Amino acid sequence: MKKIPPATLEHVAGNGLLSRRHLLGFSLAGISTIASSAAFGADAGTLFEIPAWSKQPGPGATGYGAPSSFAGNLQRQAGAPNPLYPGGGSSRSPLQHLQGTITPNSLHFERHHSGIPDIDPAQHQLVINGLVRQPLVFSYEALLAYPMVSKIYFLECSGNSGSLFGNSAAEGSAQSLHGLVSCAEWTGIPLATLLEEAGVQADASWVSAVGADASSMGRSIPLDKAMDDVLVALYQNGEPVRPEQGYPMRLFVPGWEGNISVKWLTQLKLTAGPSQFRDETSKYTDTMKDRRSEQFTFPMGTKSVITSPSGQMALTRRGVYQVTGIAWSGSGSIRRVEVSADGGRTWADAEIESHQSDKALTRFRIPWQWSGAEAILMSRATDSTGAVQPSRTALLEERGNLAQYHFHGIQSWGINAAGEVSNVYA
Amino acid sequence: MKKIPPATLEHVAGNGLLSRRHLLGFSLAGISTIASSAAFGADAGTLFEIPAWSKQPGPGATGYGAPSSFAGNLQRQAGAPNPLYPGGGSSRSPLQHLQGTITPNSLHFERHHSGIPDIDPAQHQLVINGLVRQPLVFSYEALLAYPMVSKIYFLECSGNSGSLFGNSAAEGSAQSLHGLVSCAEWTGIPLATLLEEAGVQADASWVSAVGADASSMGRSIPLDKAMDDVLVALYQNGEPVRPEQGYPMRLFVPGWEGNISVKWLTQLKLTAGPSQFRDETSKYTDTMKDRRSEQFTFPMGTKSVITSPSGQMALTRRGVYQVTGIAWSGSGSIRRVEVSADGGRTWADAEIESHQSDKALTRFRIPWQWSGAEAILMSRATDSTGAVQPSRTALLEERGNLAQYHFHGIQSWGINAAGEVSNVYA
Repeated sequence: MKKIPPATLEHVAGNGLLSRRHLLGFSLAGISTIASSAAFGADAGTLFEIPAWSKQPGPGATGYGAPSSFAGNLQRQAGAPNPLYPGGGSSRSPLQHLQGTITPNSLHFERHHSGIPDIDPAQHQLVINGLVRQPLVFSYEALLAYPMVSKIYFLECSGNSGSLFGNSAAEGSAQSLHGLVSCAEWTGIPLATLLEEAGVQADASWVSAVGADASSMGRSIPLDKAMDDVLVALYQNGEPVRPEQGYPMRLFVPGWEGNISVKWLTQLKLTAGPSQFRDETSKYTDTMKDRRSEQFTFPMGTKSVITSPSGQMALTRRGVYQVTGIAWSGSGSIRRVEVSADGGRTWADAEIESHQSDKALTRFRIPWQWSGAEAILMSRATDSTGAVQPSRTALLEERGNLAQYHFHGIQSWGINAAGEVSNVYA
Repeated sequence: MKKIPPATLEHVAGNGLLSRRHLLGFSLAGISTIASSAAFGADAGTLFEIPAWSKQPGPGATGYGAPSSFAGNLQRQAGAPNPLYPGGGSSRSPLQHLQGTITPNSLHFERHHSGIPDIDPAQHQLVINGLVRQPLVFSYEALLAYPMVSKIYFLECSGNSGSLFGNSAAEGSAQSLHGLVSCAEWTGIPLATLLEEAGVQADASWVSAVGADASSMGRSIPLDKAMDDVLVALYQNGEPVRPEQGYPMRLFVPGWEGNISVKWLTQLKLTAGPSQFRDETSKYTDTMKDRRSEQFTFPMGTKSVITSPSGQMALTRRGVYQVTGIAWSGSGSIRRVEVSADGGRTWADAEIESHQSDKALTRFRIPWQWSGAEAILMSRATDSTGAVQPSRTALLEERGNLAQYHFHGIQSWGINAAGEVSNVYA
């Protein structure tokens, strides 16, 4: 393949966004040319020092693996413990260090209201009661014998990106601003199967789910959603659900705010109306600009975030970068992601990766030539229902800035002449 | 939903295989009924003791999570270290404990020839040389700037299931017999991109890949495959490739025997023919029944294994079980999986789960009513090319039993009247 001189780059939008057909042929720092005869030939020693790790055998196979010690920055970011809120708080996925769409279980975001209970599955029970023909108690072992399904779904805390409701753009990274979203293959029993086993009475219209943690987290779910695609999830990326994700079982409510996917699930009570649990009255309601609070605002919005380059990164050279990020929608799959490098004046379609299914993270990419001048990168997702991610301004015009939840406006990353990337309002 | 009395079960094949439309309504051990008024009412205390973990807050969020201590059996199974083969050997994925299709990184099978090198990515180099216009050396940082793709692919060691070539059926579990297969979302740079950067000369027809471990693992790959779907993989399920999988980078050759996906990749040399590396002459060749050895037998066969029930498990009651397993093909996707409960006399179609893409694990399920009598469970996969998994007998008739690699015959699990499951030849 011939190198393409910069003059022939096919620009698809302002300020350096390039056609994805023109990805190659750029000289990058960290690539050097060598004389062919020297490489791995008689005089290889003059070019390459054989590294220590190639000179003697390493340790052998292990029972349960761990990342390289050189990948030590690959950590969730947890807030400082609050003695008034024992075990409460969250940790965020390191979006800027991840690729693809699957979040490894060890890096899936967390949100706890009374910390992580250490549950013995042999002592755990799942009760289905309320407006049912026959209340039932299931052991963990009994549930393992039920038919299961596996689906790749994102999970997002409705408080994710909430700082963007603020009046000034907070300093932060993709992780600290948007890291309360992750994606995994969840395997579980369709909730409909278990509800049908107990027999739903005609006057039941909600399901109240309660967790076994010390906060007794409770949330109410409309019956039609419960009978649709909700799972009692027992596995996450193939292995049993992790303790911080609800071991031995959690509810999984695809596309809806994370809090409703009740962890450490121990009760499902069929009711004629919502239970008005603490966490659907004092929290997880959206205060509109007229100070009216909307309740039961379940689906997560159509959304995207560029993860590289992103806040607190720095561009170290002029030239071509691969702009990449994640997009998702609580209402379907991602049909389109557009990217702008000039603060929203012009847009180009990014490449959408395959295996984007309903309510799963989708990765997008587009090459971008940074000229060394200031730039503002944005991404804008469109989902399969036609819903388009709004600008921050449009979102705030509609909803005001009293809300804490369901921010899904466009993220703008400002790049200054020094190459430093930061959260900006544009 | 009404309970279906056993007399109306819709049988789809002999010895208890059931239609998947009839999954519900069976009484299982571990499910009890309760009087509605008692559950979580005034007298709940007489039914349920509040567990200790619900009474006080647990610990908060962490940087990098780990499984529950109650999931302690979730381990890879490694062979005993051999002092004559330091670092050599393998570990196997616990297939009988996994669900879905993604293998968590910590449980992905391993195969090492000189153990796991501890590579500092800042000191690692990838060289492309040989029959190229311009030999190149890439740093890890430089490679991170290249466009990447993410795909879900299985990886299988060609030695997987090799004990089934033996004259007598070895005792073992799904893990010990078949655990050298796993599946992950791999993210990397298309190898074609890097080869085009170096400029492939017209007389090049193979690529020789060499790893930086102490065994200098080397394998030759035909150029047309290298230019097709091969990746230089940098990420595995979203995070950097684990040390035992080749950190900081490995070759990933979709659908082909695992050994050719060279780990700790440090050199790609374009050549006019195969390099006849040690591990494609002394190993990884298939000896046929006429004692002729076939070399470069790359694609993995069309294959399936029932993971539950499977060897060394025990059925503890009569009644309905969910038979489930995994299927895969090195040549495409899985179109069909049939299951037999009577040793192959009659077969029924299992349900195929969604998101089965090319060269990825696919999960299948079918309900089965165990009568308490002896039974032999089998599964038979058909891939998108029409290739059908052969019986063990047919495979051995074709290939003899001198081979060690590429066993992909049908696995038979025998169930005796006590419910004990074991590997049998049937």
